[in-house]
Amino acid sequence: MTSRKRLVLTGVNIIDGNSPVPILNGSVVVEDGLIAEVLDSGKSPNFRDARVLELGGAYLLPGLWDVHIHPEYPLPPGITLAQQTANFGAQLSRALTDGGVTSVRCAGAASYMDVAWRRVFDSGKIVGPRVFASGYFLTTTGGHFLTSGVARECDGPYGFVHAIREGIKSGVDHIKLNMSGGIMGPPWDLHKHSFLLQEELEAAFAICHLREFNVMAHATNPDTVKAAIRLGAHTIEHGYIQDDECIDLFQSSGVWYVPTLAISHLTNEQATCDIEREWLEQRQIAPDLQRRADAASEEHAKWFKRALDAGVKMALGSDIHPLSEAALLEMGLWVRDGATEWQTIQAATKNAAELCGVGDKLGTIEAGKLADLIVVTDNPLDDITNARKLMLVVKDGQIVSDKRGRTAA
Amino acid sequence: MTSRKRLVLTGVNIIDGNSPVPILNGSVVVEDGLIAEVLDSGKSPNFRDARVLELGGAYLLPGLWDVHIHPEYPLPPGITLAQQTANFGAQLSRALTDGGVTSVRCAGAASYMDVAWRRVFDSGKIVGPRVFASGYFLTTTGGHFLTSGVARECDGPYGFVHAIREGIKSGVDHIKLNMSGGIMGPPWDLHKHSFLLQEELEAAFAICHLREFNVMAHATNPDTVKAAIRLGAHTIEHGYIQDDECIDLFQSSGVWYVPTLAISHLTNEQATCDIEREWLEQRQIAPDLQRRADAASEEHAKWFKRALDAGVKMALGSDIHPLSEAALLEMGLWVRDGATEWQTIQAATKNAAELCGVGDKLGTIEAGKLADLIVVTDNPLDDITNARKLMLVVKDGQIVSDKRGRTAA
Amino acid sequence: MTSRKRLVLTGVNIIDGNSPVPILNGSVVVEDGLIAEVLDSGKSPNFRDARVLELGGAYLLPGLWDVHIHPEYPLPPGITLAQQTANFGAQLSRALTDGGVTSVRCAGAASYMDVAWRRVFDSGKIVGPRVFASGYFLTTTGGHFLTSGVARECDGPYGFVHAIREGIKSGVDHIKLNMSGGIMGPPWDLHKHSFLLQEELEAAFAICHLREFNVMAHATNPDTVKAAIRLGAHTIEHGYIQDDECIDLFQSSGVWYVPTLAISHLTNEQATCDIEREWLEQRQIAPDLQRRADAASEEHAKWFKRALDAGVKMALGSDIHPLSEAALLEMGLWVRDGATEWQTIQAATKNAAELCGVGDKLGTIEAGKLADLIVVTDNPLDDITNARKLMLVVKDGQIVSDKRGRTAA
Amino acid sequence: MTSRKRLVLTGVNIIDGNSPVPILNGSVVVEDGLIAEVLDSGKSPNFRDARVLELGGAYLLPGLWDVHIHPEYPLPPGITLAQQTANFGAQLSRALTDGGVTSVRCAGAASYMDVAWRRVFDSGKIVGPRVFASGYFLTTTGGHFLTSGVARECDGPYGFVHAIREGIKSGVDHIKLNMSGGIMGPPWDLHKHSFLLQEELEAAFAICHLREFNVMAHATNPDTVKAAIRLGAHTIEHGYIQDDECIDLFQSSGVWYVPTLAISHLTNEQATCDIEREWLEQRQIAPDLQRRADAASEEHAKWFKRALDAGVKMALGSDIHPLSEAALLEMGLWVRDGATEWQTIQAATKNAAELCGVGDKLGTIEAGKLADLIVVTDNPLDDITNARKLMLVVKDGQIVSDKRGRTAA
Repeated sequence: MTSRKRLVLTGVNIIDGNSPVPILNGSVVVEDGLIAEVLDSGKSPNFRDARVLELGGAYLLPGLWDVHIHPEYPLPPGITLAQQTANFGAQLSRALTDGGVTSVRCAGAASYMDVAWRRVFDSGKIVGPRVFASGYFLTTTGGHFLTSGVARECDGPYGFVHAIREGIKSGVDHIKLNMSGGIMGPPWDLHKHSFLLQEELEAAFAICHLREFNVMAHATNPDTVKAAIRLGAHTIEHGYIQDDECIDLFQSSGVWYVPTLAISHLTNEQATCDIEREWLEQRQIAPDLQRRADAASEEHAKWFKRALDAGVKMALGSDIHPLSEAALLEMGLWVRDGATEWQTIQAATKNAAELCGVGDKLGTIEAGKLADLIVVTDNPLDDITNARKLMLVVKDGQIVSDKRGRTAA
Repeated sequence: MTSRKRLVLTGVNIIDGNSPVPILNGSVVVEDGLIAEVLDSGKSPNFRDARVLELGGAYLLPGLWDVHIHPEYPLPPGITLAQQTANFGAQLSRALTDGGVTSVRCAGAASYMDVAWRRVFDSGKIVGPRVFASGYFLTTTGGHFLTSGVARECDGPYGFVHAIREGIKSGVDHIKLNMSGGIMGPPWDLHKHSFLLQEELEAAFAICHLREFNVMAHATNPDTVKAAIRLGAHTIEHGYIQDDECIDLFQSSGVWYVPTLAISHLTNEQATCDIEREWLEQRQIAPDLQRRADAASEEHAKWFKRALDAGVKMALGSDIHPLSEAALLEMGLWVRDGATEWQTIQAATKNAAELCGVGDKLGTIEAGKLADLIVVTDNPLDDITNARKLMLVVKDGQIVSDKRGRTAA
Repeated sequence: MTSRKRLVLTGVNIIDGNSPVPILNGSVVVEDGLIAEVLDSGKSPNFRDARVLELGGAYLLPGLWDVHIHPEYPLPPGITLAQQTANFGAQLSRALTDGGVTSVRCAGAASYMDVAWRRVFDSGKIVGPRVFASGYFLTTTGGHFLTSGVARECDGPYGFVHAIREGIKSGVDHIKLNMSGGIMGPPWDLHKHSFLLQEELEAAFAICHLREFNVMAHATNPDTVKAAIRLGAHTIEHGYIQDDECIDLFQSSGVWYVPTLAISHLTNEQATCDIEREWLEQRQIAPDLQRRADAASEEHAKWFKRALDAGVKMALGSDIHPLSEAALLEMGLWVRDGATEWQTIQAATKNAAELCGVGDKLGTIEAGKLADLIVVTDNPLDDITNARKLMLVVKDGQIVSDKRGRTAA
Repeated sequence: MTSRKRLVLTGVNIIDGNSPVPILNGSVVVEDGLIAEVLDSGKSPNFRDARVLELGGAYLLPGLWDVHIHPEYPLPPGITLAQQTANFGAQLSRALTDGGVTSVRCAGAASYMDVAWRRVFDSGKIVGPRVFASGYFLTTTGGHFLTSGVARECDGPYGFVHAIREGIKSGVDHIKLNMSGGIMGPPWDLHKHSFLLQEELEAAFAICHLREFNVMAHATNPDTVKAAIRLGAHTIEHGYIQDDECIDLFQSSGVWYVPTLAISHLTNEQATCDIEREWLEQRQIAPDLQRRADAASEEHAKWFKRALDAGVKMALGSDIHPLSEAALLEMGLWVRDGATEWQTIQAATKNAAELCGVGDKLGTIEAGKLADLIVVTDNPLDDITNARKLMLVVKDGQIVSDKRGRTAA
């Protein structure tokens, strides 16, 4: 980590997040945490008082985003809240330094531990990614995600209203509302089922609307996707099953879609590369859950591609662990399911920042924006797995990870 | 108990559950828990590697079902939950081995002890009948069945919704919803009274509908029978008092009716045989409850017969104890009230399996179905009490009870 | 107390509760607790095997009723529930033996102690009046009668529904529902104010209707009197303020009115006789409460008389203590406010029994009815205070109080 | 303090609260706590048996009112309820003796400590101002004013109804209902946001209406101001943001407006005099809260003046501390924002008494009214800060503060 005021990254190919064509052999000047200049090869930066890094033809991108994360689960028996909180902080920090993930959006965390880390990271006392916090995952009694330890079970319209108000009081940035079942759950937790009664849904959205908090809606079947969009959700998570009307509603409303392909795609049956196989070896997902994922995968992939082709606003969220691997794995799945590398990179940078309401300050490499940047040795537009070849991570203009000794020749 | 893969039952008259005419001197071949072949006297089974039982003209039927059971009540003072649970398991096990009851549907059990036994029996660690579990009997404060220890008192629409969601989370197969009073209760618990307010009813059915859980509706008067059918109940239990419109609704909806004749019929006043008198001697039902039963009996019998004659879909459930006697007693009452032996046997086999949603796998003796079978020495189509003359019980192709030493010459 | 089977009361003038003209020098024969014969002076009873009481021209009436009672209040600090319960039993017993009150209807009692005493008195183990039990006085948070210790505060429709269901489960005979403020209360508890919101009222009456429990409605102003009648109340208590429409509704609905004149009439300012002055001396009612009573009295008296003249069905309830004095004091106030002695006696006998739904068995002196009777030395039709000159009390055909040694010459 | 029956204040210029022109060199005679006579210079009072104070040309006014106060906040860590209660009493007492504030209306106090002090002050055991009590500040979970320790978080219609009924039972004079965010709060507590859902609002007003308790509505944006007026609020507090329709509604409804200018006006940035600067030095308001105040101030001032010019009924409430300074500071801000001294004095005397429903007994200097009076050395109609030059405070005809030794020559 460095505390210099000026930093010049030079001799680098810039994928700025706006254009699919990199700026070759360019330079970026960072001052006081902001991007001061973006120069092409024809222009030479001012090196005075600057720390200068000659990057020898590496690739510079906006920092990556993962807009659907959780603390790790399932929880080991007897783990304390303090241990969970500390572990989550460590995972977030490693996501930044080892995964190049400079910002995350949380989709459910117990005890508002995401709010806690946002405050600590924002204070600068520990280095970590930017956090957009949800607090608890709000579901019904007998709802989804109960084994994760992050779900709060609410019943009745004012059960939800109370929990949402508690979240607001506790400092969340948005409300994570579960509307239906999932793939990773017990037999009675099915993604084809909707969970909230109509007056529960209406009350939950009404209080979010009144307090101007965005709803991050877990919606996994056509009924809940449509209900969420019509009630004014800000983003739809998962969307495993949809129909044409869902796609139409996405288009007409401009609501965001976060597909989380990893949930249905990462199984022993479907693994396509060593990276995925190694991950599966480590995660040890139960056979029955893998079977549910396999059964859902093709439909999920279909609607992902339909949404992508229809120009639905989409951003990248992984929903898996560890956070340092999660976004990179999800990016691989986007490409496997038919997205271009460029679409995938935009989903994980520019689009994600816009989804989080900070597109004016983050998500692309432009003068005046906050300097959240990563450098990789090879071109991820050629092969998305090159996004793994991390050399440098810069957050707020600070070098928070420098792997050149290990990764560069 | 045996663990052989192949089992041949031969020299047996087969009442297969589909045809009122037995297959005389036939054979049934069982392989890996399934019925492999059903052969008439003209065809000889392959005895290779098989355990062969020559049954000497006995009668083979599908295993019996009791689709309305509870753990025993009233509870002795101070009994622990562990003791109740163990007792219930013992009763279920004896129902299988001594009563030939290979499947039961529960109509209310405390602490989800029916779910617990279903899981244990399904694991094969203890032999017991197939269990379709309801968990708690859901009623209102001051509702029905409070002395049984299995009732959960709910108030308000979300009181019911919460309890139903708890049931789903706890692994039940269906929801037992009490809608009215009963015969066996304190003076303020009358079967002519409905107990839930309209918005409670609507909410309870709405959440069951959303989660696709069937409602097993305790409905004892015309208002509740009709409300239950209209709100989408799967089965109506008891139906002590009905009217013509009830019968019409049963017919047009295809909703099941489980009459539980024993509740109103088994009293000192009404007993018609030694079996019933002996049972009454053991149960010691309070005189005031017997008077209520006597007062309700004729009306109950009338609507039972009306439903039967109208072709209403009906299955056999006893609602009494011990479980090893209960279905057999109820079968006697069906015949006493005008059902043929054949109707009664179908109600306790094929119909019951269909009611439980497993008619494709159970309930009749057909190749490809699971081998849940009983053998009795004499023909129950001649006299329903012959169903008591139990020689063998087979579940999942395993002989779980062999009484030939005692019952056969 | 006597246990003889036959009892003959002879030489007595009979005010039978049906006719305003006494049967002079008649006889009543009691057998097995029932009135066997009512004979005029022309006919001589059969004295065989009978206990015969020659009553020398005294007056025989049906036992008195007080259809609005409570356990004593306010409660002394630190009094135990056991002590309250025992005290209440003692008061009830004295009401029977010293006041000639053979039946009471309770209007609110903590811990269902009225149900408890009804069961004990019905068992015959202690002698007491017939009790019609209400259990708790159901009001809102911040409602009426909070200082009495008998009120249960309910909020929301299902707060009331739950409390009513609890009452039903606990064995009450009817539901006491508070709808408005009172005279005896803190400054914010005013009888001109209604306390329940519309949906609370509707839910409370709906569940009573469904379970066929009568509502005993505390209603003290025109809005609540009318709402109560329209929602199907069985009786209106107090009715301090009314309007013409109230009277019309009483007439058209046949709903009962229990005016409880004592509450507004018994103050130092208004006392008209030594009996009342002595009572006031003992009760020590706070000056501010007396002022509220004085302010309400004239209006109260007006609507009492209007209802009486309009033929509204009315019965006598006192709402005061001690129970052995209460009904007698209230009877005096009826006459003071314009009722005839005959109207007053009917209100305290025949009407009261009809109100309680037992007019076929109690309330008048007729062959076949239960023998609840009192004998007084002088004619109460001449002067209502003669009802205090008690010689004998008979309940269920048993002499439970015999004061002839003290009262007769 | 004196206990004499007659008191004559003479040689004094009387600002009686009705007329903008003082009565020069007049006299006021006080008897038994009431104003007996108000005499101009032409008439001489009867000095017999009187305590006579010759005031040498000072100015006599009705006692001041502050119709929007709270116990001090934020609370120091670990402070006991007893300490808070005692501190509040001391503040109130000092408001009377050092600030000339003879009456206050509370806008939220924990544990009904305002009711407690009202009762103690009314008993005369400690000298303090008249108190109009609200009890708790009722808000939603995650609502406004949570750091004050006086807020009760309610959810759902009956959450509010229950809390309001609790307040009524606890002896409050009116209901303080929070409807929106504030300036002094955490980031999610914004005065542009409304906090209650429609059915919560309707239920809260319905129960206040039924029980005839006035609603003191915290409303800070056009939506809540209009909703409050339409639902029948008695007063609107703050009104930081309004629109023309709000002003129209104030005019047509006659609802009161209490602007509490101090909240948005008293910041380092806006201070205009040493008094304000000294106060800011002592209060140490957090910089972020000052920024929010600065941002809101101009709009607030605009609608204050618009309401004043439109003739909206307005009274003076400070919402700040210490209570002995609060009303005087707020009066300065009224004049700074364009009110005349006369309008300001009326707002703090006559109008405030009318708002509190006691305009017939307090608020002006008229024969027959209660003698709550202050004397200041110089004319506050010339300069509102002359209201600080306190010589005497009279409450209920008693001299409760006499500073002539210190302030007069």
